[in-house]
Amino acid sequence: MVVDDSFYMQLSLNEAWKYQALTYPNPPVGSLILDAFDKIVTIDAHKEAGSAHAELLCCIEAAKSLGDDKIGKLSSPILQHEYLMKHYKDRFKDYKIFVTLEPCMHEGKTPSCALLIKHLGFSKIYIGTNDPNSEASGAIDFLKSANTKLFFGILKKKCDKLIYPFTKWQKNENFVFFKLAKHQNGVISGKRVSSNKSRSLVHKMRAKIDLLVIGGDTVRCDKPILDARLANSNNPPDILIYTSKDDIDRNIALFKIKNRKVFIEDSLKKINDYSFVMIEGGEGMFFHTKDIVDYYLMFTTSKFKPGKKINLDANLKSLHCFKNCSDTIEWFENIDKGKSKCTS
Amino acid sequence: MVVDDSFYMQLSLNEAWKYQALTYPNPPVGSLILDAFDKIVTIDAHKEAGSAHAELLCCIEAAKSLGDDKIGKLSSPILQHEYLMKHYKDRFKDYKIFVTLEPCMHEGKTPSCALLIKHLGFSKIYIGTNDPNSEASGAIDFLKSANTKLFFGILKKKCDKLIYPFTKWQKNENFVFFKLAKHQNGVISGKRVSSNKSRSLVHKMRAKIDLLVIGGDTVRCDKPILDARLANSNNPPDILIYTSKDDIDRNIALFKIKNRKVFIEDSLKKINDYSFVMIEGGEGMFFHTKDIVDYYLMFTTSKFKPGKKINLDANLKSLHCFKNCSDTIEWFENIDKGKSKCTS
Repeated sequence: MVVDDSFYMQLSLNEAWKYQALTYPNPPVGSLILDAFDKIVTIDAHKEAGSAHAELLCCIEAAKSLGDDKIGKLSSPILQHEYLMKHYKDRFKDYKIFVTLEPCMHEGKTPSCALLIKHLGFSKIYIGTNDPNSEASGAIDFLKSANTKLFFGILKKKCDKLIYPFTKWQKNENFVFFKLAKHQNGVISGKRVSSNKSRSLVHKMRAKIDLLVIGGDTVRCDKPILDARLANSNNPPDILIYTSKDDIDRNIALFKIKNRKVFIEDSLKKINDYSFVMIEGGEGMFFHTKDIVDYYLMFTTSKFKPGKKINLDANLKSLHCFKNCSDTIEWFENIDKGKSKCTS
Repeated sequence: MVVDDSFYMQLSLNEAWKYQALTYPNPPVGSLILDAFDKIVTIDAHKEAGSAHAELLCCIEAAKSLGDDKIGKLSSPILQHEYLMKHYKDRFKDYKIFVTLEPCMHEGKTPSCALLIKHLGFSKIYIGTNDPNSEASGAIDFLKSANTKLFFGILKKKCDKLIYPFTKWQKNENFVFFKLAKHQNGVISGKRVSSNKSRSLVHKMRAKIDLLVIGGDTVRCDKPILDARLANSNNPPDILIYTSKDDIDRNIALFKIKNRKVFIEDSLKKINDYSFVMIEGGEGMFFHTKDIVDYYLMFTTSKFKPGKKINLDANLKSLHCFKNCSDTIEWFENIDKGKSKCTS
């Protein structure tokens, strides 16, 4: 196979997809550094808002690869950024950096990555796509004015799909994804379909979303708690129980979780009040939300089990798949979105 | 993420899995070369028996990367091997080579890869697992005696799973895999479930296997040809139609294909006479063959469709997944093999 710019960008993309839905309100971003002789020094990704950006993480690893044993001891991205700015000016001359997204220009919770890249002297920068956030963008022009040779648009379409949720947030639109756990033969019934590691990942996502939508029957039958306890989080999402009959027992654990609202409604309109929405459910919920779901997230086990499946038509497009312990995780785009206008 | 020996071996494995079931009677093998500065020069895999081995393909690319414009014009692996032996002695000193399988020692249809690696002067060789073929093995001792530093057993379990079919053939046992095409929701009914690219891959496999097993109902309903026309092959597999009623119409196209035998039997015993067997079918065939299947090969589309699924229990273990155009391809090990003794 050809080892070219696309190969390195794909490695960056693979790393970034591991953190899809976890970086809200930031976009997931992957990065990779090649040294002066094109050895891969490191591949890394932004993991959650407030923590180091992918480019900074890669620069830290590049410093460590030069024998720096101090930078790892610094306690924050701001200190690490300062340290690199102070001690590594032009030290990465002849190095190349790949980033799935245009580096940020502005100083947010962490300092500007574009400034860091210019200051550290990278000779070439490969960027997947541009930043839809007008406040953070501008890095492309800024880096072009430096001694850095800039290559834009490597695997651009793939990089755009990676940050599609972020693109929507920038336009004040919400991003809605449907999470489904199933066996190889499509069966979704049964408790704890997916592995502990996958359940833990779902809890991490629950700690990031701001609304979780679930069907009335699931609440009646399973009495789920729907918090983010496996992620040790005190930030549970608000809950919308979508049901035509309001006979939900208010004494179940779901209603006892602090710091959240629970709505019981026969409409999905509440979704419009939230930016980042996850839907969990079965065939009914799948049918009713087909027109508003942006992405589907499937956890598929390696088992065949007797039971119920979703017996509907839907055209999705696979965006990325990877292994997570015994499950296969795959993200899909909803090709049919808005086509049938069947939502209530 | 850590860029270490396992990272490079995994890249070699990823490449090799693309050719699983196509290299018969050889094992699939992946290889990767790093230059003196650890730049990835190339990643390649053995594609079919009689063609160049993975190590040779990588050495050819390494020669090209040094500006050699002659080697690409040579018409056979033997000539390319000779050319490298003549012109590249010790030229890859300080280079590293990764191979998922111990390089071959013997001269088969192509010359010895171990000899080539030693002669070209690689300073380090990383081997995934050892060759179960006693005739071809011996490379590990041979290379240890050279100036080559040898690292054995990187991702050994994964490398063993990759060559499991070959391991069985070496013991004169057969290797049986079940191919299933399905939609995301597990539905297997409907014509042409998977993409043209996946169908073309299945035809390539049909040109390699020596027996294709299929159920009587599939033959009665679909009247399939079951040749390897999409692979432009004149080497169709023999066919076993597994059915309790011998009322199959002998005038359908399936019986008109040259160079093959067709058996119609109510037992699966015929499988024991063949080394490399593919089974295609639905729920009935899945149930009856659960105890003799080694690996499952799933082609899963990105669609949901109403229809029938396989409503059975089965414990598989995922070995490798990758995208093939719009489908996801995944290989599984059959954890339940031999447990229920339910085959006829």
